[in-house]
Amino acid sequence: MLKKLIDAAICRNECDIVLKNAQYVDVFCGAVRKGDIAIKGNRIVGIGEYKGEREYDMSGLTVLPGFIDAHVHIESSQLTPEGFASLVVPRGTTTVIADPHEIANVCGADGIEYMLLASKNTPLDVRIMMPSCVPATPFENNGATISGEDISRSMGEDYVFGLGEFMNYPAVIAGDSEALEKLEAAHSAGKPCDGHAPSLTGNELNAYLCAGITTDHECSDAAEIEEKLSKGMYIALRHGSSARNLQSNCKYVTAGNARRFIMCTDDRHAADLSEKGHIDDALRTAVAAGLDGVTAVTIATLNAAECYGLKWRGAVAPNYIADLAVVDNLKDFNVKYVFKNGSPIVRNGRVMFDVSPRYMPRYVQNTVHIPELSADDFKLALRGERAKAIKVNGGSIVTDCEVCSVKTQDGDVVLGGTDLLKLAVIERHKLTGNIGRGLLKGYGFKGGALGITVSHDSHNLIVLGDDNGSMAEVANALAKVGGGMALHAAGRKEARVIPLDVGGLMSSDKPQEFIKKSQKLYALARSMGVNEGLDAFLSLAFLSLAVVPHLKLLDTGLFDVDKFAPTDIEA
Amino acid sequence: MLKKLIDAAICRNECDIVLKNAQYVDVFCGAVRKGDIAIKGNRIVGIGEYKGEREYDMSGLTVLPGFIDAHVHIESSQLTPEGFASLVVPRGTTTVIADPHEIANVCGADGIEYMLLASKNTPLDVRIMMPSCVPATPFENNGATISGEDISRSMGEDYVFGLGEFMNYPAVIAGDSEALEKLEAAHSAGKPCDGHAPSLTGNELNAYLCAGITTDHECSDAAEIEEKLSKGMYIALRHGSSARNLQSNCKYVTAGNARRFIMCTDDRHAADLSEKGHIDDALRTAVAAGLDGVTAVTIATLNAAECYGLKWRGAVAPNYIADLAVVDNLKDFNVKYVFKNGSPIVRNGRVMFDVSPRYMPRYVQNTVHIPELSADDFKLALRGERAKAIKVNGGSIVTDCEVCSVKTQDGDVVLGGTDLLKLAVIERHKLTGNIGRGLLKGYGFKGGALGITVSHDSHNLIVLGDDNGSMAEVANALAKVGGGMALHAAGRKEARVIPLDVGGLMSSDKPQEFIKKSQKLYALARSMGVNEGLDAFLSLAFLSLAVVPHLKLLDTGLFDVDKFAPTDIEA
Repeated sequence: MLKKLIDAAICRNECDIVLKNAQYVDVFCGAVRKGDIAIKGNRIVGIGEYKGEREYDMSGLTVLPGFIDAHVHIESSQLTPEGFASLVVPRGTTTVIADPHEIANVCGADGIEYMLLASKNTPLDVRIMMPSCVPATPFENNGATISGEDISRSMGEDYVFGLGEFMNYPAVIAGDSEALEKLEAAHSAGKPCDGHAPSLTGNELNAYLCAGITTDHECSDAAEIEEKLSKGMYIALRHGSSARNLQSNCKYVTAGNARRFIMCTDDRHAADLSEKGHIDDALRTAVAAGLDGVTAVTIATLNAAECYGLKWRGAVAPNYIADLAVVDNLKDFNVKYVFKNGSPIVRNGRVMFDVSPRYMPRYVQNTVHIPELSADDFKLALRGERAKAIKVNGGSIVTDCEVCSVKTQDGDVVLGGTDLLKLAVIERHKLTGNIGRGLLKGYGFKGGALGITVSHDSHNLIVLGDDNGSMAEVANALAKVGGGMALHAAGRKEARVIPLDVGGLMSSDKPQEFIKKSQKLYALARSMGVNEGLDAFLSLAFLSLAVVPHLKLLDTGLFDVDKFAPTDIEA
Repeated sequence: MLKKLIDAAICRNECDIVLKNAQYVDVFCGAVRKGDIAIKGNRIVGIGEYKGEREYDMSGLTVLPGFIDAHVHIESSQLTPEGFASLVVPRGTTTVIADPHEIANVCGADGIEYMLLASKNTPLDVRIMMPSCVPATPFENNGATISGEDISRSMGEDYVFGLGEFMNYPAVIAGDSEALEKLEAAHSAGKPCDGHAPSLTGNELNAYLCAGITTDHECSDAAEIEEKLSKGMYIALRHGSSARNLQSNCKYVTAGNARRFIMCTDDRHAADLSEKGHIDDALRTAVAAGLDGVTAVTIATLNAAECYGLKWRGAVAPNYIADLAVVDNLKDFNVKYVFKNGSPIVRNGRVMFDVSPRYMPRYVQNTVHIPELSADDFKLALRGERAKAIKVNGGSIVTDCEVCSVKTQDGDVVLGGTDLLKLAVIERHKLTGNIGRGLLKGYGFKGGALGITVSHDSHNLIVLGDDNGSMAEVANALAKVGGGMALHAAGRKEARVIPLDVGGLMSSDKPQEFIKKSQKLYALARSMGVNEGLDAFLSLAFLSLAVVPHLKLLDTGLFDVDKFAPTDIEA
């Protein structure tokens, strides 16, 4: 094996591919250099003067190491791994560290296996982190539990790259035995553990770090970044669809600390990936915000490789894996060529790989198990006239608890004359028949219902509306297609549905088709009054996330996040 | 295990040790910060406000991560691992990457095992690299061969940290199968491979790097450093006794490339370690040469840890191993305290550890196997009157070939009236009876003989002199004590000897005793005329190193390094 590379490097044998007249970023010295880049098999074998079997003229372009997304939930794209890869690889991303936390909440270990096998169908290098916090809380029903024992058993397996973001930081700080079992399993296997510790500071942060957690993507200001960096954490600059801190945080990158930053997207929708891009857009955004282009590239490549121990990745140098992104310049980052393992898979902007046929095992399909529902299932009878409503705030997933005056008539609250909607979370994994019911304020939708089977983190079926019949229509329609997004206008015959046929989370449709259909459904939702600042479906998907303040709805009922306990709707 | 640390970090349990009022270097951000440093067991658990069972006031001092010597041949100190550790640990060094290349040339695998076990007797963390090039050339006799098969067999063992500097770079570039077997074994085991590639450049360097070699400590100028860095090598700034490039090369460290430098000593004598220091002296020297103190510390700590994958080492941060060097300031680097694995082992300059009893297995003793020699064995009869002499140059181990006029009388060259000496390399491992004989010019010694059983890299017994009887006395005296350094003045009864009783390379004596005795012997050698610029014994030790130009002497006779072939003494 080595001989083949050495023979090519010294020109005893011909190189497979040579990028001629190349300008490239040297991430080791922070410089832009020139030289032919010679490739043999899946490796770069030399930089200098070379001839090859195939030669590509790189005049005017800049060769970069392939980009690494240090933390992503692929499911949040609402595309399968194949669909996701078909959007991000042409953007220059060659490796992602993926935490399949969402599908694991629906399908457990089967879901993780699905992500792994589906990814193998793509040119993207997908490293699978074992989700650490499934379920997210003990107060709700999800599709599967990943126990400390499960993690101990699987952590040594080759396909497990590390332990996913440890969101349950209170358990770590409390020294909870099951939390520590998971972390110790990762350390025994010598594998990295990702963090998630918004605003954690001082001795609590010290305690969290003593669990061997090394990254954070939740930083919000200079002091938090400085403390976390100084205590050894890698800080991920996040460039997701809704949660973004790259633009604001990249101003804290200095010559002295730059080596400890990485880039991630965490959660990024198909439409953003398609229209704006992936890490390429993060680079563009960072440079526009004032970060030096070479530093930005280093953060998105070498740093991530070092952080995660990805050997021979993240640089343009001899013996490195030939994962390359070739861009127009270090400002616009328009990707012209992508090489993966030495093969040209994007050429002059043209995608040369195909991800079909898609991997579609039965065990990730038909994951919505609910009884047939009727309008009466959405009745909400209150004893009193003062009730707690979940108040949404545009641009944030943090909600408030607002006490409202409502009347009950014929065993159901009267919404007419209020700006309230009903909200329902329908357990969809185990046929418990659980329906959590609540009131919602500030969403601005009128005349029907809309719902989705993505609802963090347990991914039950969540529906909002002002018409019980429409809410039942939406729920039943989603059950029929195995999950998705649906909208029903009161009085219409059928709901409009976009299936998310994989786990009720991801669409196996072609990305562009999925995006086009979504845009139509979003436009319709907007026309029915969804307020600006809200994402008609994905803002809904966060109304059951019991780890973000303040008031949320679970399949078991209303939940007070501040007290971390169930709460009654009657005020 | 984690729980104990977390409980201490969050102050549920008491910390073992707290360094109060500490100022410390944050190598992640390149900053100096303040805060109590809390230790539990062998780990740092927190930085902030802490109380501990024992508290040390660090007012006015600066806490640094323990220093890492990235590449050292401990044998070159002429002390055993215990003696070496007793000198370097009080200087703040807590980890060394050791290549036991010298003892391996004498005792093979047994020698490596000895270094490992003797090191366990010390507080120093000694990581053993498997020597890659034993013997150094096929033209001479040494004590053992470490084959590709040997390396394949052992590389997976826990005690082997990686593959030692691959000096035989022509073999790598040529694609020699045994060389590649060694390298592939290291890669299969996921272990690092050190390089040694003086002046290697262009496609030859590319080829060498395709073997997966990642470090170099032989750089001599800016262009070489820049090329090697840009191609992914870590550059070690070397601060040895004779070979030093730290002072001149540290001016090439920039904010952009600093992360890719490390520090090493390679070969450093006991006297230098005792009088000047170890990595602390490298830091002092670097700062005096203009390098920023925090950057210098980062190079000597975090960078080496990253380069070699030393997890949780090289920083003052939660969950990091509590290996700490506490200094007066970032200019003088006088070490006041050393903590190793959380224990104070140097306190206010006082050494709190003991390395006796020393590990002394029989298999590294009595390694000098030669027949009893007489004056006649040192006769050198020439056919003609023009002979090649090895010409030494002060301050360099590079020799020249000088053709001299000499007469032969009674079967022996006549040295009287010339400035020539005789040189003899006596095979001492296998009792072959081989004696290589030659002429030496420029050494400046008169009236006897001196010799040593350290002679790179095969470590045969090497003797110089102008008196055959004295040369025999020296050789026989060294055989008697199992190797060492010896001097005989013509006419005296006995030779003066300092034993190097371990492998003929290292002294098991107390370091200060050894240094004192050595100084006397060196003074005597100097009084007998050894030229300034030469090290009486160690300059001699390099006259058999067949990989350094131009003319050398092996046990098999004179060797032309440029032609890489034996050569006749007759000109």
